[in-house]
Amino acid sequence: MIVCDIGNTNIKFKQKNNIFILSYDEPMPKFDEKIYYISVNKRGEDILNKHFKNTQNLSHKITFHTKYNSIGIDRAVCCKYIKDGIVVDAGSAVTVDMMKNHSHIGGFILPGLKMYKNIYNNISTNLSKEINFDISLETLPLNTADAVSYGAMMATISPILTIANNQDIFVTGGDGKIVSKYIKNSFYSKDLILNNLEKIAKRFVC
Amino acid sequence: MIVCDIGNTNIKFKQKNNIFILSYDEPMPKFDEKIYYISVNKRGEDILNKHFKNTQNLSHKITFHTKYNSIGIDRAVCCKYIKDGIVVDAGSAVTVDMMKNHSHIGGFILPGLKMYKNIYNNISTNLSKEINFDISLETLPLNTADAVSYGAMMATISPILTIANNQDIFVTGGDGKIVSKYIKNSFYSKDLILNNLEKIAKRFVC
Repeated sequence: MIVCDIGNTNIKFKQKNNIFILSYDEPMPKFDEKIYYISVNKRGEDILNKHFKNTQNLSHKITFHTKYNSIGIDRAVCCKYIKDGIVVDAGSAVTVDMMKNHSHIGGFILPGLKMYKNIYNNISTNLSKEINFDISLETLPLNTADAVSYGAMMATISPILTIANNQDIFVTGGDGKIVSKYIKNSFYSKDLILNNLEKIAKRFVC
Repeated sequence: MIVCDIGNTNIKFKQKNNIFILSYDEPMPKFDEKIYYISVNKRGEDILNKHFKNTQNLSHKITFHTKYNSIGIDRAVCCKYIKDGIVVDAGSAVTVDMMKNHSHIGGFILPGLKMYKNIYNNISTNLSKEINFDISLETLPLNTADAVSYGAMMATISPILTIANNQDIFVTGGDGKIVSKYIKNSFYSKDLILNNLEKIAKRFVC
């Protein structure tokens, strides 16, 4: 059994303990098994189905309790097995969702960390600096490079901590490791979506 | 006496109680008096000096205590008369500075509120929504349009409140009214920089 998560920039596969992350332009791996997938990107889904004959979209098999209107299927899968707490998926966007007693209460969307260099550059060339993802948030910056790095990290971390208000915080996504480093006692899981997807697929198949 | 603040998108003048805000492309008003100015933009400064013969750059006359390396002169003028508290200038960027006992302790820079529509659009067309600057931060969003508006406001307000930690918060800038609306008991001053600049110019001239 292979599971696959099609995002806006990458297609991710999990086969047993192996994870494959490919951009849309890279050649697909060779798989003989059936691929159970979710997708938030039509182009990616088309690429998958062009390369593999034995695929199944799991989206409509997934139950998820929320009043959120058209939540991304990746967010639903990410949150599915969390009883209580905040779920953060830090990718090209950072989604922040709240679960209470196995129900999804709502959530919001922040710009992804890797976007900030471009964001500041578009405002002014004076602010065109590399973002330092190790910047300390303990002391206030004393130069522009630190001021934009501090701004990018605070714009991401502060909203999460504010709504978490001491609830558990679960973090995943390409930049999840960076985010979790700034949130003491957060629970970082590298491949939360693929792991959950595998759990869902196994239950569905059995 | 006329004072002038040259920013990255606008040139602002104050003549007695009248404020004039012009983009670089608009024709300059007619002034006979001397113009005391500060500038963070060379192009704007050239435009000013092309149109008016009687001008003086006040930058080097302004004393401001900080260890910040090359702080923008507009930020220095904005903070100059604040003894203690957080100073927020919400424009194309949002600068956030801390003053303690008349000294500048440091500060950071966030994206401007009006940038967010573009920021989200660049991440995914799914996130391309108008930002609602009246969104309530009390309840978590239940759809994408609210989720990005909430994200934009939280990315701006949470870092400010986090570092303020109950200190006074002084707000100015083109989007200052929006920001101050989200921060109870903040002190909003529409033309803080021009008012301070006038105060500085008067002392300098006397």
